[in-house]
Amino acid sequence: MVSTKIRGVLSPVLTPFEADYSPSVSRFRKHCKLLIDQGVGLAIFGTNSEANSMSVKEKRLLLDALLEDGLPAQKMMPGTGCCALSDSIELTRHAVESGCAGVLMLPPFYYKGVSDEGLYRSFATIIDAVADDRLKVYLYHIPPVSQVPISLDLIDRLLKAYPNNIAGIKDSSGDWNNTLAMLERFQPQGFDVFAGSESFLLATLRHGGAGCITATGNVNAAEISQLAQTWQNEDADQQQERLNVVRGIFAKYPMIPAMKAAIAAETGDDGWFTVRPPLVNMSPEQTSSLMQELRAVGYRLHNAEALVHAGQ
Amino acid sequence: MVSTKIRGVLSPVLTPFEADYSPSVSRFRKHCKLLIDQGVGLAIFGTNSEANSMSVKEKRLLLDALLEDGLPAQKMMPGTGCCALSDSIELTRHAVESGCAGVLMLPPFYYKGVSDEGLYRSFATIIDAVADDRLKVYLYHIPPVSQVPISLDLIDRLLKAYPNNIAGIKDSSGDWNNTLAMLERFQPQGFDVFAGSESFLLATLRHGGAGCITATGNVNAAEISQLAQTWQNEDADQQQERLNVVRGIFAKYPMIPAMKAAIAAETGDDGWFTVRPPLVNMSPEQTSSLMQELRAVGYRLHNAEALVHAGQ
Repeated sequence: MVSTKIRGVLSPVLTPFEADYSPSVSRFRKHCKLLIDQGVGLAIFGTNSEANSMSVKEKRLLLDALLEDGLPAQKMMPGTGCCALSDSIELTRHAVESGCAGVLMLPPFYYKGVSDEGLYRSFATIIDAVADDRLKVYLYHIPPVSQVPISLDLIDRLLKAYPNNIAGIKDSSGDWNNTLAMLERFQPQGFDVFAGSESFLLATLRHGGAGCITATGNVNAAEISQLAQTWQNEDADQQQERLNVVRGIFAKYPMIPAMKAAIAAETGDDGWFTVRPPLVNMSPEQTSSLMQELRAVGYRLHNAEALVHAGQ
Repeated sequence: MVSTKIRGVLSPVLTPFEADYSPSVSRFRKHCKLLIDQGVGLAIFGTNSEANSMSVKEKRLLLDALLEDGLPAQKMMPGTGCCALSDSIELTRHAVESGCAGVLMLPPFYYKGVSDEGLYRSFATIIDAVADDRLKVYLYHIPPVSQVPISLDLIDRLLKAYPNNIAGIKDSSGDWNNTLAMLERFQPQGFDVFAGSESFLLATLRHGGAGCITATGNVNAAEISQLAQTWQNEDADQQQERLNVVRGIFAKYPMIPAMKAAIAAETGDDGWFTVRPPLVNMSPEQTSSLMQELRAVGYRLHNAEALVHAGQ
């Protein structure tokens, strides 16, 4: 049987907000459609989505809005791992019942220095509570932010206990040796390893991995998607190099406000600048500097006109 | 005008859970009543309450249950700071409308390395949204767990902008020099400094502070409360020493599971052992060792019989 699991490039979709910090559903819908049109899957509610700054209710409403628009749930991998066990269960169940390809699951991240036994119980309790064969859990390893790592031993234990539900991982450790260890140890078992950024996309694909889930997928979707589709071509290393240049510019700035500022600048829609506290939006000076650097390397936001906000 | 602000000893109330991890409302009610009877205020939904492992809905239900029992809201300081701005607003508003003496507010703690400007916007947005003179915010500084510190400059800025709403702080840094700096700089302005544990209770009171908010208030309530009431007596240092001995024993174990295990052992109610993942309950061996150490210093849980669970 050929696996129908989601692969390729996904993006933790930026969440646009109104001036009062409520989610801008209309901007979100347009942005998601544009990503899908460019071949990028929707890892809505990731770190770069400011998902942990939103309530469960707000996340449910945003997911439902995409489904109402007819966007394909099979291209979606919502983040559903919260601090609260009950929140994780509710969001995960909702994603599964909505037909999502998978869920990207942070470990509970308030308590630090917790044991693998405690993390195992957390993931196991959620999987047992949802109790659905369709549930495909992608573990989310992002120790620089969560401060709660997912160890190789924990993956091994979860895979043995839930071979049908534990589907893969996003490795945002930034440590290629860790990604490589996962690729070698678990990818042959069908556990799909996604790099945490496009910096490691080509290397991950060459080692049999599934693709990448990357912030800059929001602002450089078509190019990143192109590499995932043509990575066996002769120009793959050159493509990777071009992706690195654009990412390198965004990475000089606070990433989330910078990506939003680029969309605001390219679409002329200032509403895109807004981030929820505790993040702070980019200043006009920062934005001007960012756009100057981006334009100097020939960057433009594809189909920016499709994002122009009708103010609905 | 004499300040009517809450002072003395409060405890981040342990949250008992059923075997299926749902909150045990009946055990919670009894435990809270017992704490009040021993002179300890209810800082429900703190770190030691496993509050971040619970949803907003679960927290609202627990607070409502206490109010239904007629427990005094003026002895309550629920934790209402969540990662999500919308969750913090909802919980804070509910606490204020319930008449709570104050709220203990964590900064949003998912994103690390955020700026004071971002944290200021977070607290300010919540205060502006609740927009109620009765709101008394106690900031919650616990960098070892939240990894997001609250700086002296941030306190200064918040106090200047919201002198009526910014009421004090719980300092769980474990750094006496930090507590002292807050006591000297802000306590004279009526900003109430609570030590993060009874280890610093006497020192805090001697420097004009408000008291302490301490985990072990759950299991050593009467003694800690006694020191807060008699700290000007000659035996105050001896009292402090005795408190330190008991706390020192609990601190050798994972604190939350250990306190729950002690209550289980002293009441014979095994239901008290349960913690929510990612925490792990104490083993029988750990519990036996803990109780042996506690009994060797003459420890007992006061009025343990009042906690015996009728299984409702």
